[in-house]
Amino acid sequence: MTPANLSPNANESRCHSGFHLSRNTPAGGLRARLLALTLAALALCAPALPASAQPTGDLGLVVERASGSLLVVDQSDRASIGRITGLGDLSHASLVYSPDEQFAYVFGRDGGLSKVDILAQTITARVMQAGNSIGGAISDDGRFVAVSNYEPGGVRVFDADTLEMVADIPTGSKTIGLVDIPGTRFVFSLWDTGETWIADLSGETPQITRIKGMGTNPYDALVTGDGRTYIAGLFGEDHLSALDLWQEHPEPQVILPSYAKGREGLPVYKMPHLEGWALAGQDFVLPAMGQHEVLWVDARSLQETGRTTTHGQPVFAISRPDGRYVWVNFAHPLNDTVQVIDSVTKEVIHQFTPGPGVLHMEFTPRGHEVWLSVRDAGKVMVYDTETFEKLGEIAAESPSGIFFTARAHRMGL
Amino acid sequence: MTPANLSPNANESRCHSGFHLSRNTPAGGLRARLLALTLAALALCAPALPASAQPTGDLGLVVERASGSLLVVDQSDRASIGRITGLGDLSHASLVYSPDEQFAYVFGRDGGLSKVDILAQTITARVMQAGNSIGGAISDDGRFVAVSNYEPGGVRVFDADTLEMVADIPTGSKTIGLVDIPGTRFVFSLWDTGETWIADLSGETPQITRIKGMGTNPYDALVTGDGRTYIAGLFGEDHLSALDLWQEHPEPQVILPSYAKGREGLPVYKMPHLEGWALAGQDFVLPAMGQHEVLWVDARSLQETGRTTTHGQPVFAISRPDGRYVWVNFAHPLNDTVQVIDSVTKEVIHQFTPGPGVLHMEFTPRGHEVWLSVRDAGKVMVYDTETFEKLGEIAAESPSGIFFTARAHRMGL
Repeated sequence: MTPANLSPNANESRCHSGFHLSRNTPAGGLRARLLALTLAALALCAPALPASAQPTGDLGLVVERASGSLLVVDQSDRASIGRITGLGDLSHASLVYSPDEQFAYVFGRDGGLSKVDILAQTITARVMQAGNSIGGAISDDGRFVAVSNYEPGGVRVFDADTLEMVADIPTGSKTIGLVDIPGTRFVFSLWDTGETWIADLSGETPQITRIKGMGTNPYDALVTGDGRTYIAGLFGEDHLSALDLWQEHPEPQVILPSYAKGREGLPVYKMPHLEGWALAGQDFVLPAMGQHEVLWVDARSLQETGRTTTHGQPVFAISRPDGRYVWVNFAHPLNDTVQVIDSVTKEVIHQFTPGPGVLHMEFTPRGHEVWLSVRDAGKVMVYDTETFEKLGEIAAESPSGIFFTARAHRMGL
Repeated sequence: MTPANLSPNANESRCHSGFHLSRNTPAGGLRARLLALTLAALALCAPALPASAQPTGDLGLVVERASGSLLVVDQSDRASIGRITGLGDLSHASLVYSPDEQFAYVFGRDGGLSKVDILAQTITARVMQAGNSIGGAISDDGRFVAVSNYEPGGVRVFDADTLEMVADIPTGSKTIGLVDIPGTRFVFSLWDTGETWIADLSGETPQITRIKGMGTNPYDALVTGDGRTYIAGLFGEDHLSALDLWQEHPEPQVILPSYAKGREGLPVYKMPHLEGWALAGQDFVLPAMGQHEVLWVDARSLQETGRTTTHGQPVFAISRPDGRYVWVNFAHPLNDTVQVIDSVTKEVIHQFTPGPGVLHMEFTPRGHEVWLSVRDAGKVMVYDTETFEKLGEIAAESPSGIFFTARAHRMGL
């Protein structure tokens, strides 16, 4: 939505009105110059009112992996509004947002942790916190940012304001599947020992709970949107493991036993991203590793309820926020295609080919649009999720992950 | 499960379980100093942002009913940052947010519809759209704001930018229970005829689907967070009615039949707010009308699964966002008290008395805090939802509804 001008009279000396004008200017370069002028004018105005007219609720960041930059996007205008550079190695990068939706914490594969300001479009702090890291999370109260590391194996926790390290939790193992849960807690798993740990940071010192017996080589994990069920994918087993975190003493539960039994595994071009698992109606839907299918699991009993054959090996299987439809992208060489599955009938209802290298999909918070990163086309493409009509596209340099600021308000990311 | 406590000895840099807490160690101090230097260096490079730059992700509005004003609050700072006046009759007022979290649409009982800018803290548009209205909603794409009216009976739809009326849907009845669902659609119910209508605004002209037989005198309704199940409370029946909106032809389904049978109804001091119904674990929890209890209904089967006796007649029964706990406030004269119910055991685990006239409760988006309007104390009070510790309070004039901007990203409000 284009913000309405606050005053019908463009000459009225409201310090924020110039910003609206600059946002609506079509040419990017001109817009940037106008923005600079506007910001200068704002500084001179020193108004009593909060003067920046840039709300943050509909912004987002797109990871540009090849150039180590982030494209700042405006969801309502379906446009890019800036770029933040100098973020190092952004292959497999992910990020989380501060509760106010002003700051993003970017987790680079190279161990870099960067704090960026989406309003100022700058890096405000950056630390190399490990040699090889694999994602992070922010605590429910926004005070702590945690990163899970391969090298050295463990989790490090940082003050969200300053990026000062406040806790170091070595695990003696590559550490994966880090998520936040309520109560200023984080959950993560250990590749080498098959354990899941819960770190409670609500008090003066971290309290750690260790849960053994999750299975051989957990490689990724997710927690459900309510923070209750933690599910780990296992590289060394033909099943998954789940924990009910609402129990006082959570015990690992085997789910989907022998889900690939009797079938020759296809080569795994790309490990499925378990963060893509999602609740779709009464089921979770998840990509089957090494198979051309997605699996449906009853959210309550954790029993398999069905399988849907797909175009290729699924990478992400993501529910539209209402759970009515599931969108799936695929591993190389079939990664030019997207399929849409009806979560009631479990049938593919739509298939299309956005372009080469569809790497990620992000829904607007209430699901009316989906944004796709089409890496080798150098574009982010926007589609209507009801009509499947293409609504727009945005130039981007080798785009991968797309992250809207609404994630600030969700658990378990 | 063995919680691994850190060593109580602050001089020991490592505890027996191998954890390292940098903030208690010299190494941590060094790190902090190095980081401070890094930040100082970065600060020199960063372009100046207006000092008053204000992100919108953690803001909120508190309805001040007696004075017809809105208090602007900052969730992270637990503070008020301004006041917007001139909104007319705000008794029973509610509001929704634009997708960018800059604008709120305020629905007054007197038929006033106001658009306010939370950054500029001003009213940008205001229309008297009916004589007596009862709440509204914003479409999933943010284009349309709809209001349900008693007088004249029906729904009116407005352009979210301009507040120009774009559709008038007379129903010949008092109209209640208006909610948004995916697909640029609204659902609402008719007090006089017991019908529920679905209005689809995705095309050039509104398409209306009428569903008959919901029951006598629906007085309020809700839709579940996924936009799938619409449940109407009935003034003239001893049950509720539900619709599965994912069906091609939704049929009313009776739920909680005879839930008050054989018990003399207590006087209804205040009709429960069905928007307060919420998913708590596997159940919906809802206030029983005229009784001192909340009812639990299986979210899948819609069968009753339990009742919890409460301190008084519940007004709101609201789940913490993760569903683990349900917070309940009560009708006059017991409205100085709040109870907290565990959604697993269905037992009251905490009760306290914030003060006279607890009218509303709003959780931070990830549930670490709850904000309470305590009308007759003239305060909004903030509590930690894990420890129940009071964290702060904010002066407000007869506060009622509290609305955080994160609502912009949720369906069915």
